Amino acid sequence: MSRVAVVGTGLIGGSVGLALRRAGHEVRGFDRNADRVAHAQAIGAVDEAAHSVAEAAAGADAAFVAVPVAAVPALALEVLEAGVPAVGDVGSVKAPVVAEIDRQRPDLAPRFVGGHPMAGSEQDGLEGADADLFVGTTWVLTPTEHTDGAAFTAVRTLVSQLGAEVVAVTPEHHDALVAVVSHVPHLAATTLMDIAATTGEEHATLLRLAAGGFRDMTRIAAGHPGIWPDICIANRDAIVNALDEYLKALTSVREVVALEDRTSLLELLERARAARRNLPVGTPTGEALVELRVPVADRPGVFAEVTTLAGSLGINIVDFEIAHSMEGGGGVVVLVVAEQHGAALEAALAQRGYHSSRSAIR
Amino acid sequence: MSRVAVVGTGLIGGSVGLALRRAGHEVRGFDRNADRVAHAQAIGAVDEAAHSVAEAAAGADAAFVAVPVAAVPALALEVLEAGVPAVGDVGSVKAPVVAEIDRQRPDLAPRFVGGHPMAGSEQDGLEGADADLFVGTTWVLTPTEHTDGAAFTAVRTLVSQLGAEVVAVTPEHHDALVAVVSHVPHLAATTLMDIAATTGEEHATLLRLAAGGFRDMTRIAAGHPGIWPDICIANRDAIVNALDEYLKALTSVREVVALEDRTSLLELLERARAARRNLPVGTPTGEALVELRVPVADRPGVFAEVTTLAGSLGINIVDFEIAHSMEGGGGVVVLVVAEQHGAALEAALAQRGYHSSRSAIR
Repeated sequence: MSRVAVVGTGLIGGSVGLALRRAGHEVRGFDRNADRVAHAQAIGAVDEAAHSVAEAAAGADAAFVAVPVAAVPALALEVLEAGVPAVGDVGSVKAPVVAEIDRQRPDLAPRFVGGHPMAGSEQDGLEGADADLFVGTTWVLTPTEHTDGAAFTAVRTLVSQLGAEVVAVTPEHHDALVAVVSHVPHLAATTLMDIAATTGEEHATLLRLAAGGFRDMTRIAAGHPGIWPDICIANRDAIVNALDEYLKALTSVREVVALEDRTSLLELLERARAARRNLPVGTPTGEALVELRVPVADRPGVFAEVTTLAGSLGINIVDFEIAHSMEGGGGVVVLVVAEQHGAALEAALAQRGYHSSRSAIR
Repeated sequence: MSRVAVVGTGLIGGSVGLALRRAGHEVRGFDRNADRVAHAQAIGAVDEAAHSVAEAAAGADAAFVAVPVAAVPALALEVLEAGVPAVGDVGSVKAPVVAEIDRQRPDLAPRFVGGHPMAGSEQDGLEGADADLFVGTTWVLTPTEHTDGAAFTAVRTLVSQLGAEVVAVTPEHHDALVAVVSHVPHLAATTLMDIAATTGEEHATLLRLAAGGFRDMTRIAAGHPGIWPDICIANRDAIVNALDEYLKALTSVREVVALEDRTSLLELLERARAARRNLPVGTPTGEALVELRVPVADRPGVFAEVTTLAGSLGINIVDFEIAHSMEGGGGVVVLVVAEQHGAALEAALAQRGYHSSRSAIR
């Protein structure tokens, strides 16, 4: 059991608090809205309601900053300044957040471990808080070459206890990925809904004709808009890139339709159907695991490189440990992954000059 | 009770057969695949399995041609040639089908009433047939100036008995509408899924990060691709137009993001959210109704004009009757609609020179 500070007790912070308390941790919460943190205490999401960030952070072993992405750097720095050894966040965009903390306080930045729970909810308040919100979902962590191995381990362990699978990727890689699987889909659905709703006087007829497919596709447009301008601005470049790619692909589909190119159309549809059907659902449980022990040299960023290499292959990290100190004289990174991914990860590590040993552990 | 022929006993034809038999009609079915029609008989979707279109059509009071859109004109013409007085179809595209039947046999075309049930199913075989498939859904009918009033009335009555709401619009209007609410969404989701699945080596990571929003949005891409090339070719122009509009809107969203134009972005998101939340769900039952009696002159197309005017306002036709013969000496069209729409429809009719009387009926 450890003491964890949760800064921001909305939907995500409240859910983190509920799950951490259930796992036996002591949670101290702060929210700039005093009513909200009192409410969080009333529903059992925090043990104690603090009156300031510093009070919540004092003596904590770890902290989660669960506020909108634009507010993360300032609050994370306050928590870091209070001496918390491992600080995570939950913002939807990572590279600008990580870079801003690095820029302002390079001395404190190693203790910050950027993260993003891929748990969607159309709710946006404490009312939707749920200790099970993260069970079986993916929680991305974005260590950098500056990240402290002990801070990463602490945050990763807590995230596992929330029931989430951990995938580590670089902040930039994360942002490019979510632009494609989250931000552009949101904008695409919103735009489609807007066109359907504003096509002149035909409006009412259109919406009456909307069957299940259209409803499914535009459901995300019903979500709370408030968070999106910040996300779009924070992840502007990746979103513009992904939108350009989408526009290019849609333009080519337009040509295929205009030319009545039946073959290309069918190929596209078949390819997309296969991909959609192969979309991983949930988390395999009870699968066989292997342990890779990776001797690493004494240089900064080596553990971030090893973990994000796994992430870039789509391999989640079931367990992670730094067997010897990473500081001074090298050490051993222990990675536990699903057995089916063991050989691929070992080969990819070897390509980068890391020679690991692999053994089954269950 | 009447005798109805169902040509094509797949998912839609089988469901029509099940529902018509439940409503007390006698159903004779034909399918070019003899096993399929035998199967339809075994599950109670047809009373009798015919060996040819002509055999199914002989003596029928009405018929539904439930085959893919490209096959509709030839089969509908066979049924019309057999003398069936009211022939409907279920194809996803209407203008080319209606035009082709008009072109080949202008003498028979008045007895054809184009239609499109807006009932989605990811199933694509008789296994998914369900007597309740159409309950509470919208079934679009597309009468033209040539359509015979009695044929329209017969098809409309049967469709009501399937449990569907009837909306009448022109074939061209239908095709433009479904391009926006069905065909372009399908292509947009398919393209998004394809991009996510083929973004180089990042593929596996991408798909692991896909949360609920992406899953919802791409669900339709998992459907059977087989019918789509025909649909895209049949509705090519409307789809290209709608795709152009979508590309234009998305390009403007791209600019808004690139310029970090927070205000425009929030306006778009708020507008789309309101529209999505206002999407009509299901059918209001037990609502108050009004009857509009519309004296009409003796000229072709007048009843199609009246009914599609209602459809273009998003008003479904709860009941419809031609009180006196439309042929010779004028007559009265009786339209039953929800009370809330009565005044709007009356005003729109007046604008076109139709002066109706309106009275509450429940």
